[in-house]
Amino acid sequence: MAEKLHIFKIGGGIIDKPEELHEFLTCFSAFVGLKVLVHGGGKGASKFIQQLGITPKMEQGRRITNKETLDAVTMYYAGYLNKNIVACLQSKKVNAMGLCGADANLITASKRPVKEFDFGWVGDVKPSGVNNQTIELLLNNNIVPVFSAITHNQIGDLLNTNADTIAANVAISLSQTYHVTLHYCFDKIGVLRDLENEDSMIAEITPNLYSKLKREQVIYDGMIPKLDNAFDVLNQGVERVILEHPKNINTNIKTIVCKD
Amino acid sequence: MAEKLHIFKIGGGIIDKPEELHEFLTCFSAFVGLKVLVHGGGKGASKFIQQLGITPKMEQGRRITNKETLDAVTMYYAGYLNKNIVACLQSKKVNAMGLCGADANLITASKRPVKEFDFGWVGDVKPSGVNNQTIELLLNNNIVPVFSAITHNQIGDLLNTNADTIAANVAISLSQTYHVTLHYCFDKIGVLRDLENEDSMIAEITPNLYSKLKREQVIYDGMIPKLDNAFDVLNQGVERVILEHPKNINTNIKTIVCKD
Repeated sequence: MAEKLHIFKIGGGIIDKPEELHEFLTCFSAFVGLKVLVHGGGKGASKFIQQLGITPKMEQGRRITNKETLDAVTMYYAGYLNKNIVACLQSKKVNAMGLCGADANLITASKRPVKEFDFGWVGDVKPSGVNNQTIELLLNNNIVPVFSAITHNQIGDLLNTNADTIAANVAISLSQTYHVTLHYCFDKIGVLRDLENEDSMIAEITPNLYSKLKREQVIYDGMIPKLDNAFDVLNQGVERVILEHPKNINTNIKTIVCKD
Repeated sequence: MAEKLHIFKIGGGIIDKPEELHEFLTCFSAFVGLKVLVHGGGKGASKFIQQLGITPKMEQGRRITNKETLDAVTMYYAGYLNKNIVACLQSKKVNAMGLCGADANLITASKRPVKEFDFGWVGDVKPSGVNNQTIELLLNNNIVPVFSAITHNQIGDLLNTNADTIAANVAISLSQTYHVTLHYCFDKIGVLRDLENEDSMIAEITPNLYSKLKREQVIYDGMIPKLDNAFDVLNQGVERVILEHPKNINTNIKTIVCKD
């Protein structure tokens, strides 16, 4: 029988707060089972880019990654954040290994095609770009992969890549071998019926319930792309998607997104 | 019979020149056999540190690594340089994996004790700090480890570490399993009797010849610590040390340092 594998994605909300990040890494260390961590960048990256005198350029709410910005995020994500997370996990007896997509050709992306505008050195990933064999080799040898959101295109270029997308594609691809649960850690305890009231958390959300809640406008705005993405991932072989606060990964406080 | 393993160390002289670095990586790709790459930082790191507004502090010709500087070198060595080298090697069909000492606990160092002065976040490595088992796992699976000169102390701290020392200790430690040749790539074609004349290169240097050449003051200054270090490494199990120019690794132009 296939083993269970848990893929955790953490983002800026927690990475920007050293104490909360530390608390999460303690919880992650205590989490029993095969696991992978994917981390985004956070506001620290933008601050660092400004410190270097690079003016961040945005289009449609997304950062344009020129060469200078790519170098800066490679330093910040794959160097500073990734290695500090790994050193912290090692101190907690988790055999973490910090990786980007170029390492052992783990995640290949393609540079986003130029259409209305040019996003620059940004990579789009597909499940077929994930090198399962090597990730499995690491997992089978008690190594916990920790991915920064940098990939490569196999022709020598690094690419800035969305961390949610990396987590989703790694999860989909590894579903060929494992029963995968994908955990999106964010700043809420789960999906709430009433944003002001944590007691209104929905423990389990299926496509039917999701349609109903959208019709009733209980779910709107930012939660819609999150949940659309979660259902999309479920349709590609991932067993469960969990939306939760990073401090709650070892508790029952979470929203489980699953099929009907 | 034990397999042969080649460990290459490259430093600032080449890392600071993108075209020469690229040429070396092409040669390294063509080099047949089990191989490991260790890279230093170079002047680009100092420039980057200044760009961040950090004033480099030196004591006895060595950089003092305060916390800000450690963060900067972690970004530059383990992020920028390491991942760009890996992406370049991947484009040349070398299955490179970029690593620092914290990754999978590969190289543990201890923070240099404070004596006359405090070097800051600098790590000293011993052969026993090298995690052979995991390096062998990677080599056995056709992965080429590429080490940046950042280690950790197992209690959560990253440490800035001399790349020559990392190369030497990895070489010594892996001598338990492999016939190891350690290649120090530098800006000369080898040890020269006359610095102005490349035809004066010494093809092979043994302890006897070394003593003689030192007495005759043919070898002096900067070559003495390099050769002392090479003989020290040979005395700890490494089979051969080679001093060569990075562009010559696939030729016979090199000085081989070996026992009498």
